[in-house]
Amino acid sequence: MFSQAMLALGQKRSVIREIFEYGNRRKKEIGPENVFDFSIGNPSVPPPQALTDALIDLIQHTDPAALHAYTSAPGDADVREAIAKDLRERFHARARGDLVYMTAGAAASLTITLSALCVPGDEVIVLTPFFTEYSVFVAQARAKLVRVPAAEGTFQVDGGRLAAAVNAHTKAVIINTPNNPTGAVLTEESLRTLADVLNAGAEKYGHPIYVISDEPYRELVYGGVKAPFAANYYKNTVICYSFSKSLSLPGERIGYIAVSPEAEESENLFLAVCGAGRSLGFVCAPALFQRAVARCLGLTGDLSVYDRNRTLLYDAVTEYGFRAVKPDGAFYLFMQSPERDANAFCERAKKQELLFVPGDDFGGPGWVRIAYCVGTDMIRRSLPAFRKLAESYNLSGCQKTSF
Amino acid sequence: MFSQAMLALGQKRSVIREIFEYGNRRKKEIGPENVFDFSIGNPSVPPPQALTDALIDLIQHTDPAALHAYTSAPGDADVREAIAKDLRERFHARARGDLVYMTAGAAASLTITLSALCVPGDEVIVLTPFFTEYSVFVAQARAKLVRVPAAEGTFQVDGGRLAAAVNAHTKAVIINTPNNPTGAVLTEESLRTLADVLNAGAEKYGHPIYVISDEPYRELVYGGVKAPFAANYYKNTVICYSFSKSLSLPGERIGYIAVSPEAEESENLFLAVCGAGRSLGFVCAPALFQRAVARCLGLTGDLSVYDRNRTLLYDAVTEYGFRAVKPDGAFYLFMQSPERDANAFCERAKKQELLFVPGDDFGGPGWVRIAYCVGTDMIRRSLPAFRKLAESYNLSGCQKTSF
Repeated sequence: MFSQAMLALGQKRSVIREIFEYGNRRKKEIGPENVFDFSIGNPSVPPPQALTDALIDLIQHTDPAALHAYTSAPGDADVREAIAKDLRERFHARARGDLVYMTAGAAASLTITLSALCVPGDEVIVLTPFFTEYSVFVAQARAKLVRVPAAEGTFQVDGGRLAAAVNAHTKAVIINTPNNPTGAVLTEESLRTLADVLNAGAEKYGHPIYVISDEPYRELVYGGVKAPFAANYYKNTVICYSFSKSLSLPGERIGYIAVSPEAEESENLFLAVCGAGRSLGFVCAPALFQRAVARCLGLTGDLSVYDRNRTLLYDAVTEYGFRAVKPDGAFYLFMQSPERDANAFCERAKKQELLFVPGDDFGGPGWVRIAYCVGTDMIRRSLPAFRKLAESYNLSGCQKTSF
Repeated sequence: MFSQAMLALGQKRSVIREIFEYGNRRKKEIGPENVFDFSIGNPSVPPPQALTDALIDLIQHTDPAALHAYTSAPGDADVREAIAKDLRERFHARARGDLVYMTAGAAASLTITLSALCVPGDEVIVLTPFFTEYSVFVAQARAKLVRVPAAEGTFQVDGGRLAAAVNAHTKAVIINTPNNPTGAVLTEESLRTLADVLNAGAEKYGHPIYVISDEPYRELVYGGVKAPFAANYYKNTVICYSFSKSLSLPGERIGYIAVSPEAEESENLFLAVCGAGRSLGFVCAPALFQRAVARCLGLTGDLSVYDRNRTLLYDAVTEYGFRAVKPDGAFYLFMQSPERDANAFCERAKKQELLFVPGDDFGGPGWVRIAYCVGTDMIRRSLPAFRKLAESYNLSGCQKTSF
């Protein structure tokens, strides 16, 4: 028969998708305006007008046979160089166009990078809480996922825990800053700690340990916070990016892998990325969108909406007595469940038509993820439901964290 | 270090790409009009105007946040149903929208399908000559590639050879009709032979053997030939399609997998496809193009150009004394090398600025592939070079095959 492992993976829909589908059914039952769906990270902010203009201009003013033709396997050379230039200018990063590989989105960036790096028996460390699909992607690369908890409450790198997890089999650490599901942004101190631990591990075990920096939320930071650029703190870094969130294009599958020019054997590492892309079937990312995003580098949709949502929601839920960590980035609020079992809490929230994702699958049991990339109006309308939910647990007073 | 297997794959550029890059360098040296580049299958015919119109209309008249949002993982439900309807109407096929999985192109269709079907130790049969990247994709699925020669000259299924290759480990046979690199179209008789052999094998070894029908050239058939629809001849068929060639969109990475509703456990097989897509990082094919192709089902670019090129080129080369098989479909002419070593022949052709791909990597040593998806004018201008090449081998007379 066919692969039972793939069947199992196909049968077990991701928890996020499960709740999202429940929400869609529920909206049909009681009307979409009565369901407060905070389950999925689909941006509500439209792409910048410049993106729409670029698409129209490219379609109307380029020879269509050329526009829609294959680019070279790692992507259009001009697009790759434009991206490297943008990384150099905005983040003072070392970046080279010939080390940029255009991909069909964030998931592709990760599966290609993991395939390029890993051999069977390797271990890949993730800092928990973490984006659940990492476990699927690491398994695909035939490596073992090792969970290392981030520091409680702040979700920063815990150097001691990380050092204890590094061993001779450690190939890479995946970081995700700003983080899904916590919204935490890794500080300079965290990135220095990470670099120190990995440099020591590399020295001890005699082989490089890579940082895979999954940064689709890179531009989504608020309140004056600056997200340090991970590749500037550690040489053996592979950047995995997607324009899904910054340009509100999640459906279009466009992103890139950038191998740091400072990585050991960076050119061969890049060729391994090319080999992995070829092997997985990912040569030539979508051509029209390669060119369209190249015209919009550094631009974003109107992210002030997310910032407004963040403050509105955080202030309200903490006022009602919930405990939450104010997120510095991304568009997720990580909120503690008032009861030990976050699944039970999510079920009770459903009675108020509030849809959250339990943190268990993110490696954060006892917490829930609330995606606030929704209309501000929906958040306002949902607040009485949050209050009722808090009351049902007899919560009261302000529970703002002081981390 | 990183994966040396992926490095090797990245270092070893495909032969086709190697020649294509040589051609680009050569064009800079002596002018593009003086190089006759028949190396790559990049369609020269523009997409139908309806496709451009659909793109513009979708971009101008759809809420951009919705247009570029995630579709569900297997694709937009309406798009999937439209594709199934088209398959039912045009090919009298059994097809169901809920068994269609939208993909980021032909390579993705194949890697996902192979991952869904194969477990380590499985064997996957290809009929030679075959598209070279199959060997990469089969290796990625951790299966073993088994080459079975097609019938000489006609390139149809050779039932005896196929039966001899089927064993307890056989999981699937990949067919490609119309074929790259030969242009051959599998006949009804071939498909019946294939079905008989596989039904007998399945019976003997007690498990289904799948046909993976890679059909990106499905609509590219000429001279009144009808390409029979493979899934109508064998129940355990998975269709792998791409709109790259029919709509001249190779760079946009849009295609689909359709599991035959008649396949055993078709719904579970489809879930395995979903699991494999998730595992490889291929959920939600490019959203704008999902919707655009759904509006252009059954349409093609102006394929009469390829038909004209086919006749012009075939008639000329056989007049000059080359031996070739007149292709019924795709846009490749498979021509026999006048000397045993097709690589040496390709080198000699380069002296006339003619760029072909040697058949060796396609499992067709002693032959070359000539991609005629180029401007008709370039073919006309190249004919004296073909004549000189023939003369350098002292070829003469008409060598039309009578297969």
